[in-house]
Amino acid sequence: MNLKIAIAQINPIVGDIEGNSDKILSYILKAKKENCDLVIFPELSLIGYPPRDLLFRREIVKKIDEILCRKILPESKDMGILLGAPLYKDEKIYNSALLFYQGKLFGYQHKTLLPSYDVFDEERYFKPAEYCHPIIFKGINLGITICEDIWNDKDYWNRAIYEKDPLEELISQGAEVILNISASPYYYGKIRLRGDMLCYLARKYKRPIIYVNEVGGNDELIFDGSSLVITENGKIAWKGKSFKEDLGIIDLSNLLSIEDINSIKEDIESIYEALILGIRDYFSKLGFKKAVIGLSGGIDSSVVACLATFALGSKNVLGVSMPSRYSSEGSVKDAEILAKNLGIEFRVIPIEKIFKAYLETFNPDGNPLMDLAEENIQARIRGSILMFISNREGYLVLATGNKSELAVGYCTLYGDMVGGLAVIGDIPKMTVYELARFINREREIIPQSILTKVPSAELRPNQRDEDSLPPYPILDEILKAYIEDNLSIDEILEGGFERNLVEGVIKKIDSSEYKRRQAPPTLKVSTKAFGMGRKMPIAWKRGF
Amino acid sequence: MNLKIAIAQINPIVGDIEGNSDKILSYILKAKKENCDLVIFPELSLIGYPPRDLLFRREIVKKIDEILCRKILPESKDMGILLGAPLYKDEKIYNSALLFYQGKLFGYQHKTLLPSYDVFDEERYFKPAEYCHPIIFKGINLGITICEDIWNDKDYWNRAIYEKDPLEELISQGAEVILNISASPYYYGKIRLRGDMLCYLARKYKRPIIYVNEVGGNDELIFDGSSLVITENGKIAWKGKSFKEDLGIIDLSNLLSIEDINSIKEDIESIYEALILGIRDYFSKLGFKKAVIGLSGGIDSSVVACLATFALGSKNVLGVSMPSRYSSEGSVKDAEILAKNLGIEFRVIPIEKIFKAYLETFNPDGNPLMDLAEENIQARIRGSILMFISNREGYLVLATGNKSELAVGYCTLYGDMVGGLAVIGDIPKMTVYELARFINREREIIPQSILTKVPSAELRPNQRDEDSLPPYPILDEILKAYIEDNLSIDEILEGGFERNLVEGVIKKIDSSEYKRRQAPPTLKVSTKAFGMGRKMPIAWKRGF
Repeated sequence: MNLKIAIAQINPIVGDIEGNSDKILSYILKAKKENCDLVIFPELSLIGYPPRDLLFRREIVKKIDEILCRKILPESKDMGILLGAPLYKDEKIYNSALLFYQGKLFGYQHKTLLPSYDVFDEERYFKPAEYCHPIIFKGINLGITICEDIWNDKDYWNRAIYEKDPLEELISQGAEVILNISASPYYYGKIRLRGDMLCYLARKYKRPIIYVNEVGGNDELIFDGSSLVITENGKIAWKGKSFKEDLGIIDLSNLLSIEDINSIKEDIESIYEALILGIRDYFSKLGFKKAVIGLSGGIDSSVVACLATFALGSKNVLGVSMPSRYSSEGSVKDAEILAKNLGIEFRVIPIEKIFKAYLETFNPDGNPLMDLAEENIQARIRGSILMFISNREGYLVLATGNKSELAVGYCTLYGDMVGGLAVIGDIPKMTVYELARFINREREIIPQSILTKVPSAELRPNQRDEDSLPPYPILDEILKAYIEDNLSIDEILEGGFERNLVEGVIKKIDSSEYKRRQAPPTLKVSTKAFGMGRKMPIAWKRGF
Repeated sequence: MNLKIAIAQINPIVGDIEGNSDKILSYILKAKKENCDLVIFPELSLIGYPPRDLLFRREIVKKIDEILCRKILPESKDMGILLGAPLYKDEKIYNSALLFYQGKLFGYQHKTLLPSYDVFDEERYFKPAEYCHPIIFKGINLGITICEDIWNDKDYWNRAIYEKDPLEELISQGAEVILNISASPYYYGKIRLRGDMLCYLARKYKRPIIYVNEVGGNDELIFDGSSLVITENGKIAWKGKSFKEDLGIIDLSNLLSIEDINSIKEDIESIYEALILGIRDYFSKLGFKKAVIGLSGGIDSSVVACLATFALGSKNVLGVSMPSRYSSEGSVKDAEILAKNLGIEFRVIPIEKIFKAYLETFNPDGNPLMDLAEENIQARIRGSILMFISNREGYLVLATGNKSELAVGYCTLYGDMVGGLAVIGDIPKMTVYELARFINREREIIPQSILTKVPSAELRPNQRDEDSLPPYPILDEILKAYIEDNLSIDEILEGGFERNLVEGVIKKIDSSEYKRRQAPPTLKVSTKAFGMGRKMPIAWKRGF
């Protein structure tokens, strides 16, 4: 199979058909320089994934036609261009792979399997392909698939999720090589899982596989890239960068195995890189440069400040310490050391004066109750201060709550929950510590005292998280069992927990849905994040 | 056709299988007292609609089995019970109509057409029926359909949305009467549209239709009930109440036409009733009794206070006026008169002291800038005050923003947007006035001065909404064209607007998605509400 192929692992901006086509064009030119026969772009890369209800905007239909005719077709005279784009036909929309060659639309394949689970809702938008068939390009039988189309192997998964198996159909029709264009969002473990599955499929069908994935952060979702070329023996012949754009050039007639699937490692660094990409792209795609973070001197805001600094640069990050009468002395000092270690601007804005004004307004007799209302008002003052800075100086506020807090509602709506993006909202507390240790791997950026201090919201004297919550190692286990693994209470109890404890935690999770509904978008790095992938009612009752 | 049928238009609580089954049982007993042959309950009424991801909780499978065996089967010896419930089979879930009779599951029909547009995402949960077939019950051929199944008549709509038409299939197999169990959420115009379609279908197939709809508010969605029995001549034989539970008893052998489709009127009163039900159920299903509302003396908060009072009773509503240095004198006075007219508690909490504390904190030189940051801080102080009252006294905060404001982002995140529920977030400003006039139809509840004053956020001296926005009559037209009718800019311009104006409005809509993402759930009463039915990206670029 004599075919030189360019793999264009690009980072498109959702909706930016004009801008994305320029980027696509630049990769086409790079592929031409390398004398490639074919260049391959990810799923829906012309419009970015997920385009959501933008797909229903009528203007898009014309714009796509215009762009394809003006920019893409003329480049396809001597080289094939395989591009993911929505195809509008007879009031239907298809998620398509369009192959341009000889200056025309040479062939196409619509997506057959449309995922509608977790964060996916493709049946909202697309009709499935009615059939799939290989396309003969330069004498080679190409089996073209789109993302989900290859995720239904009944042997690999021990069961078929969908009735059809497009891969099987294409092979049975003589496909000699499998191409897959994807927009496959990241969660921890997916790079490894995906690689393992692709190697399995290559071995099973004795066909090489070329897998081209989108990269970039789009709101909650982070696409990791990590494109792969697999030999027909199930070995890796080329591996795209993770969390970065990349261009691979491979020769199908000479696919050399460079490594084994076991070389693909995923660890805390993957989550770290994912979050940095998620922050960076959220800012750049929204047109923001600067982030402001409330630094409490605790582990969560410290980790967020580090991630923001690595994503945006130290001169674009502002840390604000907002001590109250209940803040420990260490809180401001630790935050200041962290800011210094990061080289970011640091301000101290005590909230006492404002807090006092609230207390006087609400307790005219001069006797504060120190109830939940007065605890929360401190968090809300801090939220308002950050938003003030945002409004006046053009910073985007980063929320610093972790997944454990968000899960049980141990956070203040309109208080510590404010922000444009919840950076670690999908990271359980114990993993936040892991991230902190990873950040400190070479030198102490986050002061050791922050890593060792007892977690506290510092909203009343001597408050500790464990006054209200189980110890985090236990809490995190229960949360994973309930939220990610979707276990029933009885199944969770098999882990050896006390029934009261588990039921208490689950009650907290269920009843704080109203808070999460108003949380900022949360970067997803687990199999089940709060937000678009977990759709729960607010006003409901557990009658089961 | 000798069949006495009870139509049980019930209001279930999502997730409350135990409680809902008690309610179902009470209706079964009522039907028995009337010697009915069959009692019919709405779609998924055992678990409530929409159950969302609760459907994936494994405990539910067992609970449903247990409830059906213990409570429903024993009651079905002599009377048929047609009940909507999820059916779990082979790791699949079906949205089913289960017919119990002779103490057993006598027959069933799964839903064939699974909607995945607007607020619907049924393909996330359910598999479609593979076939549909009538069920012979007491010698009569029943054609059982579920909600969407009857919404695909190619003649009525001038095109088929789905390939299958379950109604046509059932008729061709000899169905003598059409039953439809639904959970059909309300929007303005739907009661009339649904009635018109049902009459058309009855006439087309010359079959009577029995349409049983859920009633009740479930988060954003309001189900209007309005169940219908239509004669084979397309006349109305029975009409269920709108926005209330109801029980209808009809005799299939003696269906008398009581009125014509033209008797179904929908006007501002329908929206008014929908919102009241939406508020009432959100509170009762969440276990809240009392609402607090910030009363600005403007039209929006006045209308929300009225709706809350009608929904919850005057003793359960608290109005809070929070004047600032920029509030007009009339603002407090008008709010006070309104509160008096409604008989609700009224408090005045000036924000000056707190506002001053913020200004001093941010402008140590003593010179406030009076920029957007300082405007917003006033709204955020008010939001914090309402949340303080909520936390201390157990009130749920109602947000008072209207759809026009939310659309263009003329509202303050964590400020006037705070609340557990956005009552009029789907009501354009001009319709808010209509609601106010309807509320005042018999006596002046909302002071006339509130209806006539120029809209203003009162966050700086002499501010008027029209300083920042087009006049509301024009704005609302553009918003409807863009959001509800999904028109392109060019199509909107055909309405005779200036291009600059339209582009400016659309830019505001697109760029304030980040605010709406953090808005409280919004009661839906239009064909396209913000929230679950409009899925837009935040970080995107209009490159088309």
